[in-house]
Amino acid sequence: MAKIRVVNFLIQELFKLGITHFFGLPGDYCFKLIEAIETNPQTRWIGCTNELNAGYAADGYARLNGYGALVTTYNVGELSALNAIGGSFAENIPVIHIVGLPETKYIKNNTLIHHNFDNPDYFASYNAYSCFTQSAVMLNEQNAKNEIERILYIFQKYKKPVYLSIPSDIFDLEIENTPEIKYIQSDKQKLKKAVEHALKLIQKSQSPIIIGDSLIARFSSENEFIEFIKQSGLPATTLLMGKGLLNESNPNFIGTYLGSYGNPNVNYQVNNSDCPICIGTIFSDFNTLNFNIQINPSQNINIQGTYTIIQEKLYDNVRMKDILSELSKQIKTRNTDIIKDTIKLPASKIVEEKNLNFEYITSRLQEFIKPYDRIFSDTGIFSMAIPELTLPEGAVWYSQLLWASIGWATPAIFGAQLAEPQKRMILLTGEGAHQLTFQSLSTMLTYEIKPVIIVLNNFGYTIERFFSKNPNAEYNNIPQWDYTKIASDFGGNIWTAKAKTAKEFDNVLKQVELACQDKLCYIEIFTEEKELPELMKKIYNH
Amino acid sequence: MAKIRVVNFLIQELFKLGITHFFGLPGDYCFKLIEAIETNPQTRWIGCTNELNAGYAADGYARLNGYGALVTTYNVGELSALNAIGGSFAENIPVIHIVGLPETKYIKNNTLIHHNFDNPDYFASYNAYSCFTQSAVMLNEQNAKNEIERILYIFQKYKKPVYLSIPSDIFDLEIENTPEIKYIQSDKQKLKKAVEHALKLIQKSQSPIIIGDSLIARFSSENEFIEFIKQSGLPATTLLMGKGLLNESNPNFIGTYLGSYGNPNVNYQVNNSDCPICIGTIFSDFNTLNFNIQINPSQNINIQGTYTIIQEKLYDNVRMKDILSELSKQIKTRNTDIIKDTIKLPASKIVEEKNLNFEYITSRLQEFIKPYDRIFSDTGIFSMAIPELTLPEGAVWYSQLLWASIGWATPAIFGAQLAEPQKRMILLTGEGAHQLTFQSLSTMLTYEIKPVIIVLNNFGYTIERFFSKNPNAEYNNIPQWDYTKIASDFGGNIWTAKAKTAKEFDNVLKQVELACQDKLCYIEIFTEEKELPELMKKIYNH
Repeated sequence: MAKIRVVNFLIQELFKLGITHFFGLPGDYCFKLIEAIETNPQTRWIGCTNELNAGYAADGYARLNGYGALVTTYNVGELSALNAIGGSFAENIPVIHIVGLPETKYIKNNTLIHHNFDNPDYFASYNAYSCFTQSAVMLNEQNAKNEIERILYIFQKYKKPVYLSIPSDIFDLEIENTPEIKYIQSDKQKLKKAVEHALKLIQKSQSPIIIGDSLIARFSSENEFIEFIKQSGLPATTLLMGKGLLNESNPNFIGTYLGSYGNPNVNYQVNNSDCPICIGTIFSDFNTLNFNIQINPSQNINIQGTYTIIQEKLYDNVRMKDILSELSKQIKTRNTDIIKDTIKLPASKIVEEKNLNFEYITSRLQEFIKPYDRIFSDTGIFSMAIPELTLPEGAVWYSQLLWASIGWATPAIFGAQLAEPQKRMILLTGEGAHQLTFQSLSTMLTYEIKPVIIVLNNFGYTIERFFSKNPNAEYNNIPQWDYTKIASDFGGNIWTAKAKTAKEFDNVLKQVELACQDKLCYIEIFTEEKELPELMKKIYNH
Repeated sequence: MAKIRVVNFLIQELFKLGITHFFGLPGDYCFKLIEAIETNPQTRWIGCTNELNAGYAADGYARLNGYGALVTTYNVGELSALNAIGGSFAENIPVIHIVGLPETKYIKNNTLIHHNFDNPDYFASYNAYSCFTQSAVMLNEQNAKNEIERILYIFQKYKKPVYLSIPSDIFDLEIENTPEIKYIQSDKQKLKKAVEHALKLIQKSQSPIIIGDSLIARFSSENEFIEFIKQSGLPATTLLMGKGLLNESNPNFIGTYLGSYGNPNVNYQVNNSDCPICIGTIFSDFNTLNFNIQINPSQNINIQGTYTIIQEKLYDNVRMKDILSELSKQIKTRNTDIIKDTIKLPASKIVEEKNLNFEYITSRLQEFIKPYDRIFSDTGIFSMAIPELTLPEGAVWYSQLLWASIGWATPAIFGAQLAEPQKRMILLTGEGAHQLTFQSLSTMLTYEIKPVIIVLNNFGYTIERFFSKNPNAEYNNIPQWDYTKIASDFGGNIWTAKAKTAKEFDNVLKQVELACQDKLCYIEIFTEEKELPELMKKIYNH
């Protein structure tokens, strides 16, 4: 039987899932893994500037690629990435975190070597990661092959982060190269019953509505979702985190759900449906605009990644993809009157000599964004502006509205762009968030990726000013940097510009159209300290 | 009875411990705490660029100030600082991490609000922090006063990090302002017995030797340590992490312990003593230069912060300070022949037209360092160069040789300088480490502190090259930045220079003497990729 080193077995199995890029930083305990990644012709090592940035980059990569991988060293490396993995866990992003540990003999003898504490606890980080991953495992000589297989099964089933720590001698352990591939399948009986139940409920309802959200993308069910909308003929909306999953020009799309702050028709239909069909929904405060959605569970069909709940009855081991496919095949198309009432922003209009404001920024961005663009934004001002946009065909918005860790978007777009190098990607971030993970810009330039980066400089944490007792409190100020200058000084293939007025912003975006074809474009725009997008004003004044 | 809000009670009690600066980042759940810090005339909010940097800064501050405090927000803030707190835990640095949580009602109802995951787990971060702190507690209406008092007692007793998370409504809870102060005292009986035992053992031994290390500083016992050396008349050495605690011109100092790589006499005396007296020692791999020290427990006196072990007998609740004071009073001074054989570096000598090398760097630094300077270095090349220096009176080296998380030193010196603004502080860091936490330089400039920063650019992770299979492997390369240019771009009161040869380095350091009086001095020096200090060469060739 052919034997293989543990490290190569792991890389081989991850490659089968489509992982070709491994993000991280070297450390003595993970050298063997990185060496194996670098020497494998199918995989590539992506060195990052720190572990948090590497974790966010792996998250961004996984959002587009399906799966992602992060590699760090014991304790001092892995712990700095815990917030990133926590975010992936919250938002259902499958990132495997592989950690190189000291050799088994040190663990067995509880030896005090560097990166530990006195008395040593070799299980502290493992315990911490157990709280933020679907499953965590520490390999040893006995369990290596089985545990790799088990953890990769869980990784595929739940599409959530898993944690795998490997003593550095175990990387070299020879195991049989007989991977046991387990297919993730729905329970056929339960699938059948769930479909019957759902069809019956939809059939007898007067006003079913489809509410789609981000977990559709996590469980790679975008096509099945769109097909189900088509075959059912029902009206459909998406929540903020799912914006863009359904082409906004789709005939059944009634508009993005913005609670009482958006189109009243969408809010009315969602909250007055006698059969809301939730697909991959996350009902958090931000995503529902302060819990605006009230779902009656006795009328509800709730289709999630690995299970479905209908009228409070749980159908476990039912995959989202499978139930949507079956429903599409069996459902009777309804001829519903679709009240299509999506918000249309007016054409951008330059008012001379005035500071740049959000009225102009959003209407101009609407014109700038092209089909199939990928838009990344940090939780902050921009995430309250993007909901107003109508996304063109295939354009998708990537945000982190549930975990909401500022600083995520800059490294995330780096990882995403490595997954889809041909797509135009646009980063919209506030300068407060940008500072946290700023050095990942240098990594982008090193790896020669070319997103369009727009940094909003509004002189501090603006959203926080509005939620603070005193909006002028000093603690919401941040150091003022000359962003474009620093960005240029990293060296590399970069085009930079600043815009303080509508005219300048218009002019810059016109130039970007060309410049972004062969350069990373980095633009700093300025608004007044308390300038807000329309949606944010409504929420604040509520 | 006078009432006080929980948030003000906490600040009041921390101020009594000498904490005046609170490091962190704002987030909606900790606004009330930051507002209270900002409005309290005795305390100051120090806003940082990200949570890891804030955690390291609080660690640096605590190393000089005695205690430090870190403030972050729930999950997305606190998790990014876990590596910093892990380091403080490993190295016995008392930092209190205070975290603002969502309101109690959300926790009780397990509501899905931002910074959580679906399903919510409000105890995940608390569980993670429990593994990396001496004690962790989540306040509620019932336990607030008692638990604050308990955790501050533990904080003072063990001088290790503690974790305190507070739902944002609990900040406002009114409690009685009757702090119960518990003094940390030795158990008098056990102290008496330990002193008797130690004196008897020393008395009958032929060759006792004192081995001092970093925990002496953590338990504020520097003076008692020096007095004990004087009164005992015994020879004394320090381990690397304790370098500088004992003035190197002290008549009893025999030299820094460098195992088999340094002065053979020190190594001989340590390993052949019939009564090694260990004080605050950490016997990790780096600190003992690969476990070079062999201590026979049946002959050993081991004085730690809160306990002493003599000939394998434990005396618990015996404070380091107290036992050292008692020993000094009662010990009979011995007239030992002190074989004083500390390494003396030759005077720096410029060899023209050659690249800068470590022979020149260390000898020139020896001349540059003045009494009472504070030297911070990251674990890396510089930490292998500093052991060769003889530190002048009162100069202390701060490193993180046990936890060894690269990137620590840059934010740590920021915090340290706020604790001792009048001292000249020198940061020696490799560029690899520096990149991880680079943005804290901008915080230094904002707060107008003026350390001398020397960044060694050797084109990648040099130490790792020597421990990798292939020293030229791509993964040990890092992006090349123009460090002095980017540092200047941050704006502020900064003086920069570069040095590629001995002559340039000499010239730059001459200018720094003046420039550092009113400016932050930032110097980039260059060596060849594989240039190593002497000690590191010896270890590598061993």
